[in-house]
Amino acid sequence: MRPVKLAFPLLCDDSNYFSLMFTTDYFAEIIERGISDIVYPAKPAGLFAPIRYTLEGGGKRLRPVLLLASAEAFGCNPEVALPQAVGIEMFHNFTLLHDDVMDNADVRRGRPTVHRRWNSSTAILSGDAMLTMATQFMADCDKSLMPDVMAMFNKTAMEIYMGQQYDMDFEHRDDVTVDEYLEMIRLKTSVLLACACRIGAMLAGADEKSADAMYRYGELLGLAFQLQDDYLDTYGDPALFGKEIGGDIINEKKTWLWINAMAEARERMEKILDRKLTDYLKVKEIKEVYDSLDLPARSHELITRYTDMAINALSEAGIPAEARAFFTSLAGKSVSRSH
Amino acid sequence: MRPVKLAFPLLCDDSNYFSLMFTTDYFAEIIERGISDIVYPAKPAGLFAPIRYTLEGGGKRLRPVLLLASAEAFGCNPEVALPQAVGIEMFHNFTLLHDDVMDNADVRRGRPTVHRRWNSSTAILSGDAMLTMATQFMADCDKSLMPDVMAMFNKTAMEIYMGQQYDMDFEHRDDVTVDEYLEMIRLKTSVLLACACRIGAMLAGADEKSADAMYRYGELLGLAFQLQDDYLDTYGDPALFGKEIGGDIINEKKTWLWINAMAEARERMEKILDRKLTDYLKVKEIKEVYDSLDLPARSHELITRYTDMAINALSEAGIPAEARAFFTSLAGKSVSRSH
Repeated sequence: MRPVKLAFPLLCDDSNYFSLMFTTDYFAEIIERGISDIVYPAKPAGLFAPIRYTLEGGGKRLRPVLLLASAEAFGCNPEVALPQAVGIEMFHNFTLLHDDVMDNADVRRGRPTVHRRWNSSTAILSGDAMLTMATQFMADCDKSLMPDVMAMFNKTAMEIYMGQQYDMDFEHRDDVTVDEYLEMIRLKTSVLLACACRIGAMLAGADEKSADAMYRYGELLGLAFQLQDDYLDTYGDPALFGKEIGGDIINEKKTWLWINAMAEARERMEKILDRKLTDYLKVKEIKEVYDSLDLPARSHELITRYTDMAINALSEAGIPAEARAFFTSLAGKSVSRSH
Repeated sequence: MRPVKLAFPLLCDDSNYFSLMFTTDYFAEIIERGISDIVYPAKPAGLFAPIRYTLEGGGKRLRPVLLLASAEAFGCNPEVALPQAVGIEMFHNFTLLHDDVMDNADVRRGRPTVHRRWNSSTAILSGDAMLTMATQFMADCDKSLMPDVMAMFNKTAMEIYMGQQYDMDFEHRDDVTVDEYLEMIRLKTSVLLACACRIGAMLAGADEKSADAMYRYGELLGLAFQLQDDYLDTYGDPALFGKEIGGDIINEKKTWLWINAMAEARERMEKILDRKLTDYLKVKEIKEVYDSLDLPARSHELITRYTDMAINALSEAGIPAEARAFFTSLAGKSVSRSH
């Protein structure tokens, strides 16, 4: 049994306390329990079954892990922050659900998407319910914190929609700049990681400077994370990555790799595209352009730079060494991860 | 200029005060200003243009009128309740936007639906943003009221999704009972009117008994309103109703009229449907069944009963005579309205 409320760092007399606690598995376990403890109304099943299906489909649980770890880092029992952790995972899954309808995607985490398994009306409506449920979980905190928590959450949600809109706009543009791309992924991906870190800190009563530092950490981690995701889509190990390698190239998605290749070798790129190659050859030849421009290494330089900046941001947050080690290690893993 | 904060009933020495103020037009004008004052980010236009288009498409503004009138009835300056009034209208329009995608509807309020004018991805994403913006407007109130206002709003939102799911489920069932139908329209339509009335009262600091009475008024009004809507779909004046008469019959929608006809004259109904008639003849013959069962008059009896119950509920709310007259008149109009 965990104590009801941790008064960190007063409980640190046991030097093993943090090393046992500050692991992704520890937080992930709390989250899985929180998710499986969600009580859904029995009826109408058509509304709630897809929500359960979506949430129980797994995933890294990165956002709620960040939220709980950030709360714990500032001395708050993760159990206290669990509603918000579940809320942020619910929100993230809502965005995936609706994105899958917009992208007409067939598979998510190795299973049929909701709009394939059910239909798109179900996917839209269940997604709407997930957004409202996420808001309910977010609001389930101390009344004195509620206005700030809600403001942070709603602002982040708006930014994510903006990011998704830019992402869709980019499909119809061939002049997207690297800066525009980075701003798009900041909005679409990073701010939710940042929000998770900041809400965790807020729930623990962290000071503004520390909460801002945690936000900045999450934001930079998010950039590194998404750039690594883009990298893996082209250069990942098919056995580990979980989806088809080269999907971004086949769909001519404006990733960091694509945008740079277009900026530096547009003619070669367009020649390849004009030839209407098979998917296999298209991926192969575009990768050759990427390689010739040294884009994989340059991408990794950028990822490492963001990761270092994220780790540096932690020094502004008043958190104990053990917590800092956890967040540092998490950032390091984002650079080296293979899936 | 209105006083910044009304301390009703202290300002009632002027006997014309309420009669000037308690009109639908007065509240609707405040709402239109609130809606046109919404500041949208300039970019990305693809996200915000459809929101403005949807909100500025008109409509009865019934929900925000109820919210402001309820606030005013308990002595709160409607300007204070304006964010929540805009929020509830934003929420209502979000549900219409997503419903239109689910129903694949072409026209809303005489103009192309968002997914027709833009596309369904835009409609889904802009709708999501409207839900979050609605939540932001709702949260824009005194901090001490925020937990209760948010709880009321989120609970109502969940009920509305449930109502929409039941509505979709009913399409594939031929054994829907009248009670099930009434519960569906209560969830899909009534609870939002009820929520509007209750939040207005809450913002004005009304006691629980009064707030509950206003909720009950809105709920019963909503039932009367939706039954009248169903009636008008079949029996309305085409020149006034704004959409094609008989649409529900053509689509074999399980309305109160349809369900009763199926319960009392299933054989006749099925014979007509088996003949695969033209829309015109189908509407004509089904209407003849409705008429032979006296359903128009029986429908109006039920509408009148709900309206009377709504008006009676007002007696439990501690509101002045002039406010009560306003809500009574509004309920009366729902029975007699022709569009």
